Parts: sequence; structure tokens; C-alpha cells
Amino acid sequence: MTHHTSTQTSTETSSATGTDVTVIGLGLMGRALADAVLTAGHRVTVWNRTAAKAEGLVSRGARLADSVESAVLASPVSIVCVSDYASLQQAFASVSGDLDGRVLVNLTSGDPEQARELARWADQAGAHTLDGAIMAVPSTIGTADAIILLSGSGTAFETHQPLLAALGDATFLGDDHGLAALYDVAGLSVMWGVLNAWLQGVALLSTAGVDASAFTPFAAQVAQETVGWLPGYADQVDRGSFTPDDATIATHAGGIAHLVRVSEELGVDAELPRLFGSVAARAIAAGHADRSYPALIEQLAPGSRAS
Amino acid sequence: MTHHTSTQTSTETSSATGTDVTVIGLGLMGRALADAVLTAGHRVTVWNRTAAKAEGLVSRGARLADSVESAVLASPVSIVCVSDYASLQQAFASVSGDLDGRVLVNLTSGDPEQARELARWADQAGAHTLDGAIMAVPSTIGTADAIILLSGSGTAFETHQPLLAALGDATFLGDDHGLAALYDVAGLSVMWGVLNAWLQGVALLSTAGVDASAFTPFAAQVAQETVGWLPGYADQVDRGSFTPDDATIATHAGGIAHLVRVSEELGVDAELPRLFGSVAARAIAAGHADRSYPALIEQLAPGSRAS
Ligand SMILES: NC(=O)c1ccc[n+]([C@@H]2O[C@H](COP(=O)([O-])OP(=O)(O)OC[C@H]3O[C@@H](n4cnc5c(N)ncnc54)[C@H](OP(=O)(O)O)[C@@H]3O)[C@@H](O)[C@H]2O)c1
Ligand SMILES: NC(=O)c1ccc[n+]([C@@H]2O[C@H](COP(=O)([O-])OP(=O)(O)OC[C@H]3O[C@@H](n4cnc5c(N)ncnc54)[C@H](OP(=O)(O)O)[C@@H]3O)[C@@H](O)[C@H]2O)c1
Repeated sequence: MTHHTSTQTSTETSSATGTDVTVIGLGLMGRALADAVLTAGHRVTVWNRTAAKAEGLVSRGARLADSVESAVLASPVSIVCVSDYASLQQAFASVSGDLDGRVLVNLTSGDPEQARELARWADQAGAHTLDGAIMAVPSTIGTADAIILLSGSGTAFETHQPLLAALGDATFLGDDHGLAALYDVAGLSVMWGVLNAWLQGVALLSTAGVDASAFTPFAAQVAQETVGWLPGYADQVDRGSFTPDDATIATHAGGIAHLVRVSEELGVDAELPRLFGSVAARAIAAGHADRSYPALIEQLAPGSRAS
Repeated sequence: MTHHTSTQTSTETSSATGTDVTVIGLGLMGRALADAVLTAGHRVTVWNRTAAKAEGLVSRGARLADSVESAVLASPVSIVCVSDYASLQQAFASVSGDLDGRVLVNLTSGDPEQARELARWADQAGAHTLDGAIMAVPSTIGTADAIILLSGSGTAFETHQPLLAALGDATFLGDDHGLAALYDVAGLSVMWGVLNAWLQGVALLSTAGVDASAFTPFAAQVAQETVGWLPGYADQVDRGSFTPDDATIATHAGGIAHLVRVSEELGVDAELPRLFGSVAARAIAAGHADRSYPALIEQLAPGSRAS
């Protein structure tokens, strides 16, 4: 598809020329990110372990750097998006010099602790970091549908906000570098929670020959309504005070037992219902039968105490 | 609080007089139902095992019947709301005669099979039944916030729709008497799924000192977005065709493993994440690694086959 052109050759040595932004890692996601900043009119330097993946971007005007270090030094800010933190460490192993106040925006997925470690390393190398989680597929990058969570250096976020906005809906969460990764994984837990519970309902209704499509508007209505209770429940968690204004954990436990029984009777997998039941049973054993549902937080979070 | 009045005494023997609707069972929910039909201007007969609970309603003009049978025969339609099906059986054990085409709207919570059994019994006694599930607390009865799911006799639903509308947002689901109970329990599964997954996220964020209230708007956004995918996923389930247009089960399994690891590292209970993982692992073992997430239905529902 692409081949070496004079444009590309001329850019190969141009990494000393100043650009607005560098993109390191040109996999599916990295290329989408580089495309978005090119489209937004920025001058872009790129680097990838396999240089051939830069060809399309170079033909659109990106400059290809010959090392990670020269790529980082080419722009005030570098976006890094490789497979994982191990890949990132390998890519940055060759960086020997001072990164001279550059900003690294790391969008490689990882654990909160990995993000914090990278920030400590970058700090020693003289760089500031923002760590991020992309909650989007490559095709939505550059649109408001791409949620990009960022945490770490607030100054870096403010300085580079227009650039970050070119990638998607970029939100700053706070100065703990691990926050973006934590929000990411917590959000995924909500996603799987909705999906698996919906599948439980679909499985139950299937025993009466009801289509998933017939059940789903009702499931969506219940989910929306439940989401509407969360701010009030969050307030209970934050105050550590679980006075029920709707139903007690004991009442919920009765309903959950009903869900377990109906699932079992109908031959539907009852693992998820039983898990709901076991968490509620532990809360009841801990003396919380008369508390409201979010008092279950004590069963889940380390060191939290329902009072 | 209340005491016998002449009004009440005069109604004690009036169950032969025709009324529009009978309410049997005057617990917290039954009284709210009777209140709503009184407020809507209907002539109401009531019965409760403990007659004293009828006093407030009688003072508002309800007639108190002296037996379940005379209560049912006083009106074309009777709403029944007692603790459970065992209570209902005890209450109706004394009914010896023909119920003469009367309609029973049973709003007692129970299993789908109990609803179907009641319908068979009522049919033999000459009555038609609608079986229902109330997804509301007593205080919302009579408003659009009270979701009332009904299934069974479509004719009965059509005939008594105005009366049922006085109780809340009454929806007819189909002629299988067990459907309302099934939708009820399936909806509850969605509710607990949202709540428990949100609590998982709250627990994760708490390890970084983030308040539940700070996390919750993001959790709500993720939940809403996920709910938005359900119609498309429902369509995949109904077609039995799981071509991924977003992520494969293998990709999800990788993300779930990350959620498990982060939860464990942070000392957050990892039961729910591990459950997501075990369902995905079973689907992968069954050869569905490259299918879309709703192919997990095969792991949950009896006899369903992802193709
Ligand atoms: N794709 C998505 O939908 C999506 C969504 C949200 C988040 N993410 C995250 O974005 C990141 C990148 O994903 P992707 O979809 O772009 O993956 P990908 O297409 O597999 O690309 C992986 C990138 O990492 C580079 N890489 C891997 N190992 C390396 C090493 N040892 N040294 C240097 N470079 C190395 C690869 O270089 P080569 O080209 O030389 O192999 C390539 O540029 C991941 O953390 C992923 O979780 C992706
Ligand atoms: N309350 C809610 O928020 C709510 C929400 C949704 C659904 N529901 C469902 O509505 C139904 C009633 O709930 P509730 O809140 O009204 O309960 P409740 O306040 O405990 O009332 C129970 C009712 O059942 C009657 N009863 C119990 N055993 C009986 C027996 N052996 N023979 C005759 N009558 C008997 C009681 O009569 P006595 O007065 O003589 O004891 C009373 O009228 C339940 O199935 C419940 O699941 C309730």
C-alpha cells in the first residue's frame, strides 16, 4: 500500500525539528491517536518499534524519529500507547539522558501501581507524567465518544488540555497517577455487572420462551432506575451511615433467596444470584440485617466500617 | 387509634351489595392498593384475616366482608395481596362455591410456577386470573412510579384496565400466568447486578481515598452507556449469532483478569470479578473466545446454543 517517498525520507532525520506532539507506539490505538492530532493540525513526531507502521502517518506529514529519546525530545509532550507496561519499559530502556521537562501522557493500560511507578521513574528522568485510561475503541478516537481519563500532573493537564481534547472527552481526575487506572477498572466492573445481570434475566425469561428483545426494554428501565439511586447510596457510604429509607439488607436477602430458588428451579445458572446472597449473608452475620443495601461496602472494601 | 364506629358496623353486613372492586389482604401493600382504588372513586369491598386493619379503609367508605368468598362475590374483580402463596392458599381454603366468572388479580409475590398453579385452581373454581408483580413500595401506589407487571388473562386485563391504572403503571406481558413473576425476578437480578458492581467500584476507589460520591457520576455514565448496548446484544441473542462488532470474549477475559488482579492487589473482595472470569472462561472452553460477550448466554440458560 505505502512505499518510501521522498517526503518520508526527508522526515527521517528531522526529529531535531520541533513538533507539537510526539506519539510513541503505533499499534491500532497509537495510530488512531496520531491520526487525531494530525487531523487537529498539530505538527507530529512518531516512533514505533516496527517503523513500517508509521508509513501512513508519515505520508500525512508526521515526522518519524529514530529513537524513543529523540522522539520524546522532539516535542514538549509525548503520548505513549504500547501494549503494556512491560513493553513500555523495554521501549524506554534506551533512554539515557535527561528528558528535560518534557511531559509524558501514558495511555498504555495498566494497574494503578504501575502508573505510580512510571511517574516516579519519569520524575527522576526530569519528565512530568499524566497517566490515562482510554475507554473507547480506536474508531471513536478524536470524537466526544472517546472517554479518556487522566490523572497525575495537573499542570501538565492544564497546559496541554487543547491537545488532549483533540483525542476525545479528556477528564482530569486528580494528582494520584494511579487514579485513571483505578477508575478504568472500576468502570469495567460496572459494565460487566450490568451485562452479566442482564444475561441472568435473559436466561430466566428464555425459560418461558420470551425473547431477549422483549425483556430488554424492561431491563433497561430497571437499570436506569437503579442508577438513579446511586447518588443517595454514595452519600450513605461517604457518611458511613446506612439508615434504610427503602429496604433493609434482610429484605433484600429474602428477595435474593427467591432469585436463587427460581433460577435453580428453572435450570438457569445460579452462580451470580448465589454470590449476591453470600455477600448479603456476610453482612447479616456482621450485624447489618437492618441497614440499607450499600452497607455491604464493609464486606468488599478493606478497612471500611459500616456504623 | 381507630375504634368501632357506627359507619363501620353498618357496613359489616353489606357484602352482598355490589361493589366495583374487592381487596383481599390489608397489610402494608394491600392497604395502599385499597386506598388507591378508594381515591379513584371506586366502590370497594375489603377483607383481611385480622379485621382491625380494615378500620381506616371502612371509615373512608369501604365495605368489610365477613369471608373471602363473600368478598370475592361482592365485586366483578378482586385484588389479592397477602404475604405469600401459602398465605393465599390458607385464605382461600374456605372458598367452597363457584366463583362465577369473577376475576382475581393476584399481586402476592411468588414464583412463576406458583402463579401458574393458582391460575389452574382459579380456573376450576370458575374464576379468571391475572397474576402480577408490584415493583414499588406502598407509598408510590396510585402513581406512575409504581410499576405493576401483569400476565394471564388478556381479556381480564382489557376489561379492568382503568381500575388497574388506578394502582400504578400497569403493564400486560402476555398470557402465561408465570410471566409477571419471571420479569419481576429478572428485573431484581438487574438491580442487584448494578448495585453490587457499583459497590465493587466504590471499594476499588476507596483504596485511593476517593469518595463514593466522586466515583458515582462516572459509574452512572458507564452504566448508561452499557445499557445502551443491550438492544443490540438482545438482537444477537435472539438470532443466536454472536459476531463481535466491539470486543471478543477473549478480550473481555483479559480485562476481567486485570480487574481480578487489581482487586486482589488492593485487598478488595474479588468474588464478583472472579465470577465474571469463570463465566467467560467456561465460554472460552466451549469454543466461544472469538464471539461477542452475549454468547455467554449459553453458559447461563438451559438448552441455549451459541452458534
Ligand atoms: N485497541 C483498543 O480498542 C484499546 C482500547 C482501550 C485501550 N487500549 C490500550 O491501548 C494500548 C495499545 O493497544 P493497541 O490496540 O494499539 O495494541 P496493538 O495494536 O497490539 O499495538 C501494540 C503496540 O505496542 C508496541 N509494542 C509492544 N511491545 C513493545 C516493545 N517491547 N517495545 C516497543 N513497542 C512495543 C507495538 O509495537 P510493534 O508495532 O512494533 O509491535 C505496537 O505499537 C494497550 O494498552 C491497550 O490496552 C486499546
Ligand atoms: N411492602 C412492599 O414494599 C412490597 C413491595 C412489592 C411487593 N410486595 C408484596 O406484597 C405482598 C404483601 O406485602 P405487605 O408488605 O402488604 O406484607 P404485610 O404488611 O406483612 O401484610 C401481609 C398480609 O398478608 C396477610 N396474611 C398473611 N398470612 C395470612 C394467612 N395465612 N391467611 C390470610 N391472610 C394472611 C396478612 O394478614 P394479617 O393482617 O391478618 O396478618 C396481611 O394482610 C407480599 O407478597 C409482598 O412481597 C410488597
